[in-house]
Parts: sequence; structure tokens; C-alpha cells
Amino acid sequence: MSDFEKLGEFGLIARFQSRLKHRSRRVRLGIGDDAAVYSPRLGWHQVASTDALVETVHFRTDTTPPERLGEKAIAVNVSDIAAMGGVPLVALVSLGLPASTPLKFIDGMMKGFEKASADYGIELAGGDTVASPRHLFINVTLVGEVRKSRYFTRAGARPGDTLMVTGSLGDAALGLALLGKRRQPLQGGTKHKNFLCRRHQAPTARVREAALLARSRARVGAMIDISDGLVQDLSHLLESGGLGARLWEDALPHSTALRRICAANRLNPLSFSLSGGEDYELLFTLAPVDVKKITRQFQKANALATPIGEVTANGGQVSLLRSSGRLEPLPRALGYDHFKPASPKHSGGSKI
Amino acid sequence: MSDFEKLGEFGLIARFQSRLKHRSRRVRLGIGDDAAVYSPRLGWHQVASTDALVETVHFRTDTTPPERLGEKAIAVNVSDIAAMGGVPLVALVSLGLPASTPLKFIDGMMKGFEKASADYGIELAGGDTVASPRHLFINVTLVGEVRKSRYFTRAGARPGDTLMVTGSLGDAALGLALLGKRRQPLQGGTKHKNFLCRRHQAPTARVREAALLARSRARVGAMIDISDGLVQDLSHLLESGGLGARLWEDALPHSTALRRICAANRLNPLSFSLSGGEDYELLFTLAPVDVKKITRQFQKANALATPIGEVTANGGQVSLLRSSGRLEPLPRALGYDHFKPASPKHSGGSKI
Repeated sequence: MSDFEKLGEFGLIARFQSRLKHRSRRVRLGIGDDAAVYSPRLGWHQVASTDALVETVHFRTDTTPPERLGEKAIAVNVSDIAAMGGVPLVALVSLGLPASTPLKFIDGMMKGFEKASADYGIELAGGDTVASPRHLFINVTLVGEVRKSRYFTRAGARPGDTLMVTGSLGDAALGLALLGKRRQPLQGGTKHKNFLCRRHQAPTARVREAALLARSRARVGAMIDISDGLVQDLSHLLESGGLGARLWEDALPHSTALRRICAANRLNPLSFSLSGGEDYELLFTLAPVDVKKITRQFQKANALATPIGEVTANGGQVSLLRSSGRLEPLPRALGYDHFKPASPKHSGGSKI
Repeated sequence: MSDFEKLGEFGLIARFQSRLKHRSRRVRLGIGDDAAVYSPRLGWHQVASTDALVETVHFRTDTTPPERLGEKAIAVNVSDIAAMGGVPLVALVSLGLPASTPLKFIDGMMKGFEKASADYGIELAGGDTVASPRHLFINVTLVGEVRKSRYFTRAGARPGDTLMVTGSLGDAALGLALLGKRRQPLQGGTKHKNFLCRRHQAPTARVREAALLARSRARVGAMIDISDGLVQDLSHLLESGGLGARLWEDALPHSTALRRICAANRLNPLSFSLSGGEDYELLFTLAPVDVKKITRQFQKANALATPIGEVTANGGQVSLLRSSGRLEPLPRALGYDHFKPASPKHSGGSKI
């Protein structure tokens, strides 16, 4: 009998109750009842998002330590709330646990949940633990809030809008490549490698950046978080309006770590920044007149937002303006489809 | 390549969008964005619950048709909202799909989601579809609302309170037994068998009964929905107050179908009604002075609530007053622990 079969489900629940200490004043009733109870904020709508991570499909227990996995499961959902311009509030976690799961692994995940709860100011207020015959899975639902008068959707981009992105692109995909098994390990400094692996294992949801945008008076047209790769998620912003886009190669924000490791291994940074999954950066469109103001406001707040291209009226066409001045069309399917067998594996989810 | 690998994840999402037609006026933004947006009701708290159902652990695709499975996945969560005295509002569904899942099966589940959405007046407003290497799983999160001034928790029972239960007990457990493989199939009429199987495959969440209680002025002490068996879930109501209970054998509500099938096969109805899982009936405590009034109000509304025992000060002791007049102590562990390997399999989840 495994550690945690001995503990039983009620022992496990007690363990959750005692170890998850981060509380929200808005939660009236947390772990331990039939449902969590929390009070909504006057003048705000509620927003909710859910994401499942499945062992071997979205993570491997040998490349992602349990603490990072716990953090990540929360962060990818917080990222969806951020993409609406929202503030996260309450998380619910379902764990599907094979009988062989070591208790140490579960404790590690709890640490990760606790860290993410503190980082994002949320309370893990409920959930479900079930047996899973073979593969571990984690499903997180995150509830948050957006101002009634101001939230962002995937619709609303206009031709001429500037495309903006937070942070840097491609780090998580290169981190995943670093963690994978290869005949020849990738060259480069440990500090840079660690940075990239961390970006894959435990991404940071851009809630601070989302709040900056929601508070600003800038005309933000549409917003999405990049989980399936820049080009693919960009296409979701363009779809509803039948729009196109032009990306500027020279403007794409690459981290120092990405540039160094790519250079040391003769890899093309573009193959990570255009189609690499799991950046969890925010991609949004902005009226050109507001670009300077927003860039400045982000700098003041020690955050990063970079103009990377523009929206065009050229329906369905996404192209890349190369450093050489040449305009290259990009294939529509550049990115990740979770069910196409040929696709690379990564941790994104796909919203329904 | 399977049907649904051909369809791809975006094809699947489009399918969801076009087939799930039941809408709520409170939902501002449903399927298809990063998160669902909905407006909370003034003067009400929000409640949220999540439950995972895993193939082979909680259901078998050969005993539960996909439509029933979809209905059930929603209903078991609505039941948690009902247990708080709440009204359901919005559902989020994560599907973990093995590549071999027939599209027909997915379409069947969608029908079930749609039916349950209409039955309970909710909108399926978002979710996630992911690949699962081997076993299908469904995680549903349900958000609902309770009046700020009146909702029910697992705490609040007092010695002397009457124990009440909605509907009938043990049907789902007997239904599961009927669906299982046996050397000798159970005897009895088809109508009764179908009723019991239906109670296992697609239970009805008692939202109407919950609303009656929430609107009444009766002193409801504590409430829970019975998913792991009467005695086990009763123990959760008693725990926080260090209380005990006495159940009355003669009062336990057994359906005609359960009585007939048990009689025809020399089975003891008690083994189903005391410890059988997945009833999804509401168990609540009531001031004795309110029992008549509530029973009458339920009758008027064509609903059922039965007094089945009383709360005692006898900490941790649950006993059964037999028809013979003898008082028998019941073992504490009568019921279902999801991780103890010796336990029977059923579809309940265990809240964290």
C-alpha cells in the first residue's frame, strides 16, 4: 500500500487544510465544505477559466519538480484571468492521483499551490481529489474579477492598431528543449539555462501588466495570453474581425538568455519566439497614439511592453517584416494543435 | 488518425460552440475567449465547486452512455451548489480525451451537457480540451450563488435536531450493482431496473429542494449532499460539533424499485441506503419544531423530505434504531474512501 493510500482521502484533505495557509478576506468558506463561498465585488463582473495539465502530455515528473508543477498549474489559469484585464480571486484544484504517487510529490505540489496563492493574492478555496488509474492530472479553475466598465476580449482589434507584447518571447519553448533528452546537450551558461528552464517550469502570469492596462485610459482593442505560440494566438485576435497582421522581426523581444543560448548552438531565435508555446505573455492591440504612453507607464512600473507589429485589413494574412526589409508570409498553422499527433508536446490548454 | 484527431482542437471547440445552445442572461461572454465573464447578483455570495470523473474509477464507457455521463458530470456539481442552499449559474468543463475517443462519444457527452444546462438553467461558458494518454476524464466546475443572509454549511447541527433527507436512498448503488457483471443477473421487473440504473447514470441534483429550504424560515442547522453514502456523509455533519446521531431504520426512504428488486433477490435494502454512494440527495438537520412545516411545504411542491433520525450529543457515535427496538452502533467507516484499495468503485468525488 502506498504512502498515500495509507493516508486515505480524508487524511489528504486534512493535509491540504493545514498546509494551504494563504487566505483571502473575500472568501467566507474555504476548503472542507461542499462548495467554496466568496463575495463578489460591487461594480465588477466575475471571470472564470479552467485548465487541465496531464502527465506525459503537458508535463513529465522527471523534468518538472512537483513544486514548480503546482505553481504552474495555478499560473497558467491566472494568465487567462490576466488576459481579460482581470484580478484573480479564488482557485479550485482537482487532482487525479495514481496510487503510486509518492506523498512527497503531493506535498511538493501543495508547496507550489501555496507559493502561487501568495504570489497572486488568491485563496485555494476548494477542490477534489480522485484516484487516476495511470497518469497524474491537475485541473485548476480560477475565478477572478474584471471591472464592468473595462475588460478585454479577443475581439476588438482594428486595422492600424499596434501589436504589443509583454515580457519576452520563446523562453519557455527553449527551456523545454533544454530539459529534453538530446544526443548532444545544448551549449551555454548555466545561469541562462536555468532562467529558460524556470520560464518553462513555472511561468509568471502577467497580472500586474493586466492591471496597468485596465487602469490606463489607452484604447486597448483586444487581448489574449500566448499559450500556443505568438502566431497561432495572434490569429485568434484577428479571426473575429477578418484581419491580418505584420510582425516586425527586429522588434520581437528576445531575452538575453534566449539570444545567448541560441547563438551558442546556432539555433534561430525566431523558431522559438514565433511558434514556441507557453510564453504566457500578454498580446494586445493598442491605438498607435497610445503606444508611447503605455510604454512609459510600463517602464515606470518596472514592467515590459514592446510594440512588435501592426494589425492590417489583409484578412487571414500574417507576415513577417524581416530585418532585410523583405515581407514574408507566415503559415497560418504555425503553432500548436493539441490533438494533431505530429505536434510537439507542451503545456498549453485549449479553451472551449 | 482518429475522427477527432482529424477534427483537431479548434474543430472541436467550434463544435462545442455550435452545439451548446443553452444561454444565461447573466453571462456576458461564453465559450471562445480566455475566460468566461458573468455578472454576480447583488446581495448574493458566489459559490463554486469542482469534481472530476475518471474512466474506470468513476465510470465505465460500457455501462454509462455518453449522454448520461455528460448529464451526470454536471449534476454532481450542481448537487454541491444545492447543498449550500444555492442556485447554479455557470459551468466550466475540462475534457481529457484519449486519441481513440470516437467523435460520436464526444457528441453524446455534449448532448448530456446541453440537457443538464437546460434542466438546471445554467450556461456552459468555458472549458478546456486536452489529450489524455489513456483514460478519459471530465472535470466540471460549477459556479452558483447563495443569499448572503442565508446559506447552509456542514457546520451548525445541534443535539436534538431532526435529520432530514430528500428523495430516496440507495437507488444509485443498487443501479450500479445492476449494471455490473455478475454470474447470475439480478431478478426483477425492467421498469424498476431502469429506474435504478438511471439513478446511477444520471442523478438529479436537488436544486428545487435547496431553494425551498433557502426560502423557508425554518432553522436548518447543517446541510450536505450524500455522495459517499448516508453514514459517511452524516459523519461530516457531526464532526465539527463533536456530535452523534441516531438513525431510524423504519424511516429510511426506500424507493418502490429498490424495495422490489431487493425483495426479489434477497438483498438487504439497508446495505444500499446506509452506505451506498452517489445518492446525491440532500441531508440536513432541522429544528424539530419545523419538521411538520417543511414536510408540508415539500409535499405542496411535489418534492420529498423525510425525517430519518436525530442528532445526539453522543460524540462520534452513529447508531441505528432497528425496527425491533434495538439500538445498534454503526461502524464509523461505513462508506467510501476513494483511495483505500478495498473500497468499491463509485462516482463520488472528495472535496478538498
